[in-house]
Amino acid sequence: MTAALPDAAARAAQDPPNGAEVLVRTLLANQVDVCFANPGTSEMHFVAALDRIEGMRCVLGLFEGVVTGAADGYARMADKPAATLLHLAPGLGNGLANLHNAKRAQVPMVNIVGEHRQGHKATDSALTGDIEGIARTMCDWVHTCSSADHIAQDAAAAVQRANSRPGRIATLVLPADTAWTQTRNRQPVVLAPEPPTLPSDQRFDAALKALRSGENTILLLSGRALRAGALEDASRIAQRSGARLLAQYANGRIERGRGRVVIERTPAPVDQGVAAFRDARHVILVGAKVPAPMFGYPGKPDYLMDPAATLIELTQPSDDLPAVLKELAARLGAADAAPLLQPEAPLPLPDGALTPDAVLQAVSALMPQQAIVVDESVTAGRAFFPISRASAPHDYLQLTGGAIGDGIPMAVGAAVACPGRKVINLEGDGSSMYTIQGLWTQARERLDVLTIVFANKGYKILKGEMANVGAGTWGARAEQMLSIVNPEISWVKLAQGMGVEAAQATTTQELLRLLRHGLAMQGPFLIEVQLA
Amino acid sequence: MTAALPDAAARAAQDPPNGAEVLVRTLLANQVDVCFANPGTSEMHFVAALDRIEGMRCVLGLFEGVVTGAADGYARMADKPAATLLHLAPGLGNGLANLHNAKRAQVPMVNIVGEHRQGHKATDSALTGDIEGIARTMCDWVHTCSSADHIAQDAAAAVQRANSRPGRIATLVLPADTAWTQTRNRQPVVLAPEPPTLPSDQRFDAALKALRSGENTILLLSGRALRAGALEDASRIAQRSGARLLAQYANGRIERGRGRVVIERTPAPVDQGVAAFRDARHVILVGAKVPAPMFGYPGKPDYLMDPAATLIELTQPSDDLPAVLKELAARLGAADAAPLLQPEAPLPLPDGALTPDAVLQAVSALMPQQAIVVDESVTAGRAFFPISRASAPHDYLQLTGGAIGDGIPMAVGAAVACPGRKVINLEGDGSSMYTIQGLWTQARERLDVLTIVFANKGYKILKGEMANVGAGTWGARAEQMLSIVNPEISWVKLAQGMGVEAAQATTTQELLRLLRHGLAMQGPFLIEVQLA
Repeated sequence: MTAALPDAAARAAQDPPNGAEVLVRTLLANQVDVCFANPGTSEMHFVAALDRIEGMRCVLGLFEGVVTGAADGYARMADKPAATLLHLAPGLGNGLANLHNAKRAQVPMVNIVGEHRQGHKATDSALTGDIEGIARTMCDWVHTCSSADHIAQDAAAAVQRANSRPGRIATLVLPADTAWTQTRNRQPVVLAPEPPTLPSDQRFDAALKALRSGENTILLLSGRALRAGALEDASRIAQRSGARLLAQYANGRIERGRGRVVIERTPAPVDQGVAAFRDARHVILVGAKVPAPMFGYPGKPDYLMDPAATLIELTQPSDDLPAVLKELAARLGAADAAPLLQPEAPLPLPDGALTPDAVLQAVSALMPQQAIVVDESVTAGRAFFPISRASAPHDYLQLTGGAIGDGIPMAVGAAVACPGRKVINLEGDGSSMYTIQGLWTQARERLDVLTIVFANKGYKILKGEMANVGAGTWGARAEQMLSIVNPEISWVKLAQGMGVEAAQATTTQELLRLLRHGLAMQGPFLIEVQLA
Repeated sequence: MTAALPDAAARAAQDPPNGAEVLVRTLLANQVDVCFANPGTSEMHFVAALDRIEGMRCVLGLFEGVVTGAADGYARMADKPAATLLHLAPGLGNGLANLHNAKRAQVPMVNIVGEHRQGHKATDSALTGDIEGIARTMCDWVHTCSSADHIAQDAAAAVQRANSRPGRIATLVLPADTAWTQTRNRQPVVLAPEPPTLPSDQRFDAALKALRSGENTILLLSGRALRAGALEDASRIAQRSGARLLAQYANGRIERGRGRVVIERTPAPVDQGVAAFRDARHVILVGAKVPAPMFGYPGKPDYLMDPAATLIELTQPSDDLPAVLKELAARLGAADAAPLLQPEAPLPLPDGALTPDAVLQAVSALMPQQAIVVDESVTAGRAFFPISRASAPHDYLQLTGGAIGDGIPMAVGAAVACPGRKVINLEGDGSSMYTIQGLWTQARERLDVLTIVFANKGYKILKGEMANVGAGTWGARAEQMLSIVNPEISWVKLAQGMGVEAAQATTTQELLRLLRHGLAMQGPFLIEVQLA
């Protein structure tokens, strides 16, 4: 009844390796060298393999939403997938909301989900569940490995799929016996990414026709069309044609700030969103979706465009968006046009009451070059985009799927991907509480993350939505469901409890002092902003 | 473009009501009067309806895992479903792990999951997802409401299904427009629960044959067979036949302590589990599953019973387990037998080092009558069952699905269900961090919960599992994945940060003092036990 296999340390020196070792070597051979993990029993051989093989950075999350959110933030900045390590169906379930956000950010990710050994699943023991069924609701590629002999091929296929444009989520389910069984297929498989595509001439011609029409045209951008170089080509097109640039409301990453192309986002509130598109006769989509409000409201439209306007879907998901914009600029004869770049402009420090906009002003003025701003501030940070237009060049990452709880983890992943760059996480108080455990990982890994919690003491966005959906005024019972006072939360204590230095700002002067401190130091720091 | 509907307050005075109001009234008419909620935009009309209609207790969770875990704990103690209110696909995803535990505890639950208004889903806006697909992986009944006119019928059907034996999870997906549209079907529908069943004569005869065989027989119990009255009948059967009583390893609720029937659980470690069944020639299942270890291990069996033993599945899920045991006792002629009840026995207070068993001794000695013990202590609490055998009569609730993160929420739900009874949550440090946000709900609702965190600074169970799966010794990288030191967590600060009074015990004397304080006070208290 005792284990029949030799001790792992002894086996490590032997041939052949087990499936877990081949898996780790295959991930490394395919340039996947960071693993965000929350392991359980079924993943112990993978953990043991990580221990024996050099080259994989392992980052522990105390909750799976931290793991998948970190992999989201990592991929947005690294432009390649991290691996995640998750435990069976409930572990994947806990990671699901941030897989949703990651899917909407179109990032590459490779999930390794441990499963019972083949044969044990039939016992329906306590942790048995429908892993593939859960994974399919959020992932582009789902496969259960059937043998240690197939692991190299399966893992390479997962990474290949993840790296296919625009970035996809691949989930490899790993029965414990495929990890612990030895295999002679020891050679890592490396698969080249699927090559990105370009639009047909027909699609280019449709876009060119709109751009040359002299009519009001919007170039609606998302995905990798929002990187600095691609935006310069987009701006050349706009400058030459008179078209207007607009980003989707939610995007995985935008490179912006002074010296970079000026671009606005589609407004979130439905009425403003409709107004932004009202005069457009043509809307050209480059990596963007048909613009729609976040929710359907009574008596309000489900799409933002004027129904009479022309929709031109220039790109498809497999397209190389920067190449598309370069080609479109060339075909338009705009390759030599000068892009419209954000000039230097004063960034005054705030000096009045400690309002949300005062915080945004302070951050915009003080952020260093190449900061990474992770924005999950929901209502409080709504004005960040206009206020920070002339800030130092930075990357702007935002909540893409509307599932709050991605901010703190995303900051973890961005910091792991970009050592040497400051990560600034603008965080709503309500949203922070979904994955607050991510602060511990920031402390353990000494990640250079400054978290700013906007303590407005409630789900402020929902109070607005009560009116938007026509539910009208509300009383004490609803207020209890929309507020997070009674008791008030101390984010300072929560952060300190997880090893993150933290302090509270109750005035603008305190905020400025703490902000300067947090930006100057290395490592995680949290500021709890008690809003006026 | 503005909302066409009248203001809700004005509408409330009018006829007819909207779907959300009919839903709330139907839940109340079917005895569902507690709603654990984490709402979003799509649920605002439901929140507004809760506000206007008396009778529903609304409890806010700051994370959906708290909501579903609380509904689990509530149902275990109330023997009826709570409603949960969840926001779209990611909100349901966040609640999934504790739905898994609840499913394994066989509790009734009614999830209301908000969905986009019908028609808006086609826009694939940011929060769109496959709600039904996610729900089906964990729920017994899933239905999307298609019209406000059907809400009363749909909600009643959901409650009816939830209340069918042994207790099931029903999920009603509620498109926003079905909530906000007015309906003339205003009358709540009330559906009687499906009647429970009894085994056929054939099944009874098979069990009786084994009990009369004179051979070694185990009566393996779970579910409602573990309530005090049912256990007395089980004990009568055992006393008369010589059969041995054994509970499944993981069970939703056991009524035990002095004056109640003595019953052991199947041991968790596979070798001990096999040993427990080795001599049994017959195993009779009453609400229990075919006994299997939690995981499959190299070279170890997937089932605990001797393959040559007879398995008798006396019950099916729809059976009324206490009635089955009463009938079996009668057919055996054991109705007049005296059950074997736990006598008074000394419960010494610990006085040595602050070990896990010292904590368990202290809790066992000091717990009040009718305490509810919620055990998610994983490794640290393994000896609780034998140590607390002669404790004051209490309910024992444990992690049923192996998905850690149910303890703190379950304590929330048990306390809501049973005001006036002390809830004692034995909590592992690793497991506490999955749903630590539940402490805030304990503070807000002033719930009478004493939480004891066993700070052993790591996923201690996994260190054991490394050996069990034959992964052998491990080095620094694996240690980083199995430990939660560096930085150390302060549960005292985490609790205080969420409004829960807390203190640390580093000696047994400190523990006893804090335990007496926590048991004497009303409201939540947390003790962080720094284990020796």
